Amino acid sequence: MTTQADKHPSSSHYDIVIVGAGPVGLMLSTCLARWGYKIKHIDNRAEPTPTGRADGIQPRSLDLLRNMGLKSAVMAHKPARVYEVAFWDPPADGKGIVRTGTWASCPSFIDARYPFTTLLHQGLIERVFIADLNKNGVQIQRPWTIKGFTSNEKENPDYPVTVDLEHVDGTSKETIKAKYLFGGEGARSFIRDQLKIGIKHKDPIAYVWGVMDGVVKTDFPDIKMKCTIHSEHGSIMVIPREDNMVRLYIQIASSTDPNFNPRTTATVEEVQASAKRILQPHSIEWERVEWYSVYPIGQGISDKYTLDHRVFLGGDACHTHSPKAGQGMNTAFLDALNLAWKIHAVEAGFADRKLLETYEPERKDVAETLLSFDNKYAKLFSQRPPAANEVAAATSQAANTAGQSEENQFIKTFKESCEFTSGYGVSYKPNAINWSPAHPAQSHLIRPASAALIPGRLFPNADVTRVVDANVVHLEQEIPLNGSFRIFLFAGNPAVTGQAVRDLATNLQKKSSFYATYARDDIDQVSHHERHNPHSHFFTIATVVAAPRASVEIARDLPPLLARYRDHVYADDRWDRRVPDAAAAAHAKMGIDQEKGGIVVVRPDGYVGVVVALEEGAETADALNAYFGAFCAKELGATQAQL
Amino acid sequence: MTTQADKHPSSSHYDIVIVGAGPVGLMLSTCLARWGYKIKHIDNRAEPTPTGRADGIQPRSLDLLRNMGLKSAVMAHKPARVYEVAFWDPPADGKGIVRTGTWASCPSFIDARYPFTTLLHQGLIERVFIADLNKNGVQIQRPWTIKGFTSNEKENPDYPVTVDLEHVDGTSKETIKAKYLFGGEGARSFIRDQLKIGIKHKDPIAYVWGVMDGVVKTDFPDIKMKCTIHSEHGSIMVIPREDNMVRLYIQIASSTDPNFNPRTTATVEEVQASAKRILQPHSIEWERVEWYSVYPIGQGISDKYTLDHRVFLGGDACHTHSPKAGQGMNTAFLDALNLAWKIHAVEAGFADRKLLETYEPERKDVAETLLSFDNKYAKLFSQRPPAANEVAAATSQAANTAGQSEENQFIKTFKESCEFTSGYGVSYKPNAINWSPAHPAQSHLIRPASAALIPGRLFPNADVTRVVDANVVHLEQEIPLNGSFRIFLFAGNPAVTGQAVRDLATNLQKKSSFYATYARDDIDQVSHHERHNPHSHFFTIATVVAAPRASVEIARDLPPLLARYRDHVYADDRWDRRVPDAAAAAHAKMGIDQEKGGIVVVRPDGYVGVVVALEEGAETADALNAYFGAFCAKELGATQAQL
Repeated sequence: MTTQADKHPSSSHYDIVIVGAGPVGLMLSTCLARWGYKIKHIDNRAEPTPTGRADGIQPRSLDLLRNMGLKSAVMAHKPARVYEVAFWDPPADGKGIVRTGTWASCPSFIDARYPFTTLLHQGLIERVFIADLNKNGVQIQRPWTIKGFTSNEKENPDYPVTVDLEHVDGTSKETIKAKYLFGGEGARSFIRDQLKIGIKHKDPIAYVWGVMDGVVKTDFPDIKMKCTIHSEHGSIMVIPREDNMVRLYIQIASSTDPNFNPRTTATVEEVQASAKRILQPHSIEWERVEWYSVYPIGQGISDKYTLDHRVFLGGDACHTHSPKAGQGMNTAFLDALNLAWKIHAVEAGFADRKLLETYEPERKDVAETLLSFDNKYAKLFSQRPPAANEVAAATSQAANTAGQSEENQFIKTFKESCEFTSGYGVSYKPNAINWSPAHPAQSHLIRPASAALIPGRLFPNADVTRVVDANVVHLEQEIPLNGSFRIFLFAGNPAVTGQAVRDLATNLQKKSSFYATYARDDIDQVSHHERHNPHSHFFTIATVVAAPRASVEIARDLPPLLARYRDHVYADDRWDRRVPDAAAAAHAKMGIDQEKGGIVVVRPDGYVGVVVALEEGAETADALNAYFGAFCAKELGATQAQL
Repeated sequence: MTTQADKHPSSSHYDIVIVGAGPVGLMLSTCLARWGYKIKHIDNRAEPTPTGRADGIQPRSLDLLRNMGLKSAVMAHKPARVYEVAFWDPPADGKGIVRTGTWASCPSFIDARYPFTTLLHQGLIERVFIADLNKNGVQIQRPWTIKGFTSNEKENPDYPVTVDLEHVDGTSKETIKAKYLFGGEGARSFIRDQLKIGIKHKDPIAYVWGVMDGVVKTDFPDIKMKCTIHSEHGSIMVIPREDNMVRLYIQIASSTDPNFNPRTTATVEEVQASAKRILQPHSIEWERVEWYSVYPIGQGISDKYTLDHRVFLGGDACHTHSPKAGQGMNTAFLDALNLAWKIHAVEAGFADRKLLETYEPERKDVAETLLSFDNKYAKLFSQRPPAANEVAAATSQAANTAGQSEENQFIKTFKESCEFTSGYGVSYKPNAINWSPAHPAQSHLIRPASAALIPGRLFPNADVTRVVDANVVHLEQEIPLNGSFRIFLFAGNPAVTGQAVRDLATNLQKKSSFYATYARDDIDQVSHHERHNPHSHFFTIATVVAAPRASVEIARDLPPLLARYRDHVYADDRWDRRVPDAAAAAHAKMGIDQEKGGIVVVRPDGYVGVVVALEEGAETADALNAYFGAFCAKELGATQAQL
């Protein structure tokens, strides 16, 4: 892709100014830096988060980090992994606490590659992104802050945003012209305040929480598990951490308390004393306290994420909630990812500027769902459990198995929420990029939503064998996060689909197809070794054949356009425990006929866009043209006229 | 473990001098540096291998690197992975070559965690070790060479070896006093020559090979697979590499040729022209040649690996063979590993010095097996294939499935050798550490060899759930390579084995047990967080209970000695496809009764030492005392007398 960095009129002109180098700002910056944009990224802290703060990476976020090639750098720090959550409550007949049940953090009904939550200090995660940014020539400017900004597209259509930046000690100032401004400054966002965007509180109840990271010596057996503990002395949440550390969350006050004061505080010693009481009859002693903080928190959601689609907000600037579901950083990542590829699609000339209008509705809807979940969960957490019969049921083995015993409301809510908290349940509603019957693309080949492939939901996981090197690979990870749409051609049985596949290739090559319209300018000079974008910067095609690897001959079986993606041709020949009787497990998991095949268009961020049947003739390509035509910048699909 | 580095009489006294920083020297150095030894490590090259040389890491070696915590650093270089080997031969009816079959590089009958060969430039692998050495304070001294040495235990029992070292340009010299000297200098070992140790040639035939690493543009479809290609124009072997590179091995001459000259050579252009002819009808062009070398090679094996158990040889200094089986680096790693833990066991006061006498027979026997395999394989490789009926059988699909078609001798040899080449088939014969009926330890509780657990063979893989944090883990990897023996207590059904487990713990605590005899001096000051060696530097105990994780309460179910290893208590509750009907898959895979349990002692290098039944009373511990007593430095097991 042409680097955008050298295309600006002056050294003070940027593509984007990003304020805040927490998870949301860093994810946005990292994506855009990789895709060649010129970025001014500031943070008012002198260095990355030294201790404490967010630390939970949910299963889907780990998939995302892997797709960016950053997972191994995160895992190199040996984070704790939470596979199960344990619930502790007072026994029916006495004092202290007993374990009343455990539940998988990411149960097997969710098809996750990494069915655990990864716990690692936020500062270490930030540094992984910062190292990647540095490789791409972006340095975070610290400690700098934003003093003001204006945005006026009419006056300056190319660089509508003007931003005033200042060193925190006031010794130095800069004025930047930019195409975009992003506020990832956290809950007390200056940019949001300046825009006079209000915050809605879903639940008027506010809480004061204490949080403590440290190394403990204890005989509490679940100290390396995530635990929610209710006792007659109060409630606490235990989260294991790297380096033998453990995090304790303790609720210090609630606005439902008489005489609630949001400035209520508690010392380290008070919280430790409280934890000791709650954990009785188990002992706990601190060898070291790494971090301690007390903070009031309410549920809030920003009324708007942008006013003009030039100045955007994301992360904690848009939504605040209790820390217990471990969603803060993950939601931040997905806010940024959603915005990043859309800015890129618009600025690289692929998508109409209207695409940016999908950012707020997609992400605000997720935040609403999160808050509604958090609300339910937080209330239950602060309530006193449980009835004697619940405990009796829970202490029996059966309590660990769904449906075999009566469960209390807390456990039930928790289970229901697993899919959402893992990240796999996050989904986007119909719009121009998530096909629905109301979409402008109307073709009888566009399939209605199936259980496995619903536009707006994540593309499912599947194991396949790469044909060129016989490597067993994770199909969903094969195309890296590079801003391209991912076109998965499930080619079914080659003996059945041969003509349909050839017709597809022929029609993709027609001048006004979505594919040919967005061909690379340098298509004749592309290296033989380019794997992902040999023809277009905006698409990668992967072909999955329902046949054993050894029977697939790429040059013989696929037309040259598809054969060119030789590193993205796969045999659907791996057995899968979830579909044990399927001859072609990946086809089966997707709900795609293993004879006839089908096409799945996946957005650059991994969500299904549209599913189209694979048929002979031009209609399959036409359906794809119609889908992309709904948001592409150039006109597509008047194929006959232009040939 | 007490660091040995500060225990020497002078700065020129070392525990060991290691000559050569290739795979064998680096593995030895890395182990011993981690365990606290003072090392002088020299290499006559000014820097690590810049290009070319060995590049294949076999599946079992990858397990070993993981056990050392070095796998992710290797994988960060994105090596090529070979899952399948393709065989190409001339068609029966014409010119050129056709694929006559493919075979898994590490077929599923081998229970490998990583069923592929990892291909990465030797220099990158060397640097992973060097980085680890540097962390432990060892720098390779370059470019330095050895000029002479003497070894006399009678004159100087503590530092019997004197070594003269010199900078390669002669500007600087050093004389070192050491406990050991190791020659890892490769095929032309100075140390071996000085010791006048001869080389035996298993096969008198010698070959001249050309090897070329480069980036090519080709339409040969298997360029990313390992291929053995025979054609009317000669034979070639293809090995994929990282960074789009490919390695070609081509046999230039054989001593069976008329007028064979071991100094026969060939230019890059000649080898390329030859490759072009062999690959017809496919095209191949070089974009870049990274490395090219021509070398004569014969099969050789050193008569001795040591004369006095003070000066040792390993790696290519002991065995040379053709590069085709990809065994050089792997055999080198295992030579070094075998020697490393034995030197440590002796020097740390655990084992009798006689333990060192097991190095040569264990490793020489493996080298003999390797050469015998290489011999068979190399001969076949240079022969002209195949008969028409073989091709017909092979070109049909059935050729890919074992036993369904007649196979030519080459494919058959290859298949038979898979277990050996993967590293999982490497095994050691009976001796003091690998129990057999001839072993001094005679107890009716010591089991005869079972199919799964044979002393001298690798401890099998198994998935289990760690109790403290519910993490699903690879049991065989849970105890790192730290020089300790690994005692796996398969505890079976706790309701059945409760008393036997308590009796075991009681008897391990008896003064003269192997366990108590080698207790740490600082046992009262050991940190609460020490996971592997809370009681002894020489043993780690892991307990595997045949029960679901949630039912296991460590403090309730295990005596304190075993409960102290709380991070090494596992539930055998994971389903395994290899034993789909087993309730306790790990027990089943080991061939251990899931009710009664049993004990497996694994050597520090991962090989089974002895298997003992778990019974009530003192006999189980006595059997272990008898086993360890066969090679421990202190007297063990006269329990009654010393109590």
